[in-house]
Amino acid sequence: MDLRARLHELDLTLPAPGRPVADYVPAVRAGGLVIVSGQLPMRDGAMLVTGPVADAVTVEEAAEAAGQCVLNGLAAADAVLDGDWTGFDRAVRLGVFVASGDGFTDQHLVANGASAVLTAVFGEAGRHARAAVGVPSLPLGASVEVEMMLGFSA
Amino acid sequence: MDLRARLHELDLTLPAPGRPVADYVPAVRAGGLVIVSGQLPMRDGAMLVTGPVADAVTVEEAAEAAGQCVLNGLAAADAVLDGDWTGFDRAVRLGVFVASGDGFTDQHLVANGASAVLTAVFGEAGRHARAAVGVPSLPLGASVEVEMMLGFSA
Amino acid sequence: MDLRARLHELDLTLPAPGRPVADYVPAVRAGGLVIVSGQLPMRDGAMLVTGPVADAVTVEEAAEAAGQCVLNGLAAADAVLDGDWTGFDRAVRLGVFVASGDGFTDQHLVANGASAVLTAVFGEAGRHARAAVGVPSLPLGASVEVEMMLGFSA
Repeated sequence: MDLRARLHELDLTLPAPGRPVADYVPAVRAGGLVIVSGQLPMRDGAMLVTGPVADAVTVEEAAEAAGQCVLNGLAAADAVLDGDWTGFDRAVRLGVFVASGDGFTDQHLVANGASAVLTAVFGEAGRHARAAVGVPSLPLGASVEVEMMLGFSA
Repeated sequence: MDLRARLHELDLTLPAPGRPVADYVPAVRAGGLVIVSGQLPMRDGAMLVTGPVADAVTVEEAAEAAGQCVLNGLAAADAVLDGDWTGFDRAVRLGVFVASGDGFTDQHLVANGASAVLTAVFGEAGRHARAAVGVPSLPLGASVEVEMMLGFSA
Repeated sequence: MDLRARLHELDLTLPAPGRPVADYVPAVRAGGLVIVSGQLPMRDGAMLVTGPVADAVTVEEAAEAAGQCVLNGLAAADAVLDGDWTGFDRAVRLGVFVASGDGFTDQHLVANGASAVLTAVFGEAGRHARAAVGVPSLPLGASVEVEMMLGFSA
């Protein structure tokens, strides 16, 4: 896969890969998998959405932000693979953590925004396992955090 | 392993595998692992328990529901393996998310209901790594969500 | 790697490995990975910190406790590997769950305490992918829980 070309077709832009924040890194390649760190919905250096869903932001806003998390994660994967996706032909797992206001139980609708970007990029091979759960709060007040696992068909 | 036969011995029934809900799927096979999506405690199309433990449901009810999540996950794994468990001889990891009322700190007791089903089915090879944590809320108001990783001894 | 020698150089002590609590185990080796169960900040049989950060404990206390979770996890990995780390040369992923008081959004600072221990032990190969999220509560009232994945470069 040529990730940049594919994103261009979709009118999506690969963000600049995040830099290592501390002792951890944006993505690791190990055991035939690429494990991507939990990504926040940063775009051009700004957090897209903060605060609990649906109190501070709408489900739609959070779902779009979840899609941005996936783009950020793909940038991290692309960097660790040096742009060579040979042997990494499919999405494996998404973990979606949704900052949730009282009584919010539509975490799956927020997660759909992340899932949709993966299948747009990878096609049929983008269909992945997923866990979506509520959390009270996330780093820097983000409304959503998404971690990913990529791999190969086997 | 013949999963259906083993469940029959245990007087357990393999549920019908869930259908892909959106852009994600119930389970993915990759890198020598089967990754199962977060499963809710649905049985025969109905959610067994909703609301926070121990406010809305008891620990015992939630633990039983966690066992149902595992059965649903085994059905998902069985479907992705087309019923052929050759090379997938052991449980690897459970992630257990427990909707938790104020001050509830017995998430591990709820998770035991999930762990017990795995070891009943797989025997010694069913002993798995596990993370059990509290969450404020889960999709569709479920009291518990369980994700699984299956693999082979190595 | 000789884990005991390396920890000794760092003036750190490998805890006694935890015992299987129920139907799950402290760590599993599968598919070229070691998956370590969620570890609580126990030291010498006592929980270091309980209650939400930053209400009941400070960020600094929780970060130090997160480092203890990593030590406990390394003990679990060492036990499942029978002390032979051949082929397991790197940290792959940390999952850090932080019991969070109202409005607490510095989960990443708590997680840094876990990450720092990994890189102290493994050096460059200790840099890992990470997801850090808030939770309302954890088993036994712990302030932090850390799960780990170890593997090999590939």
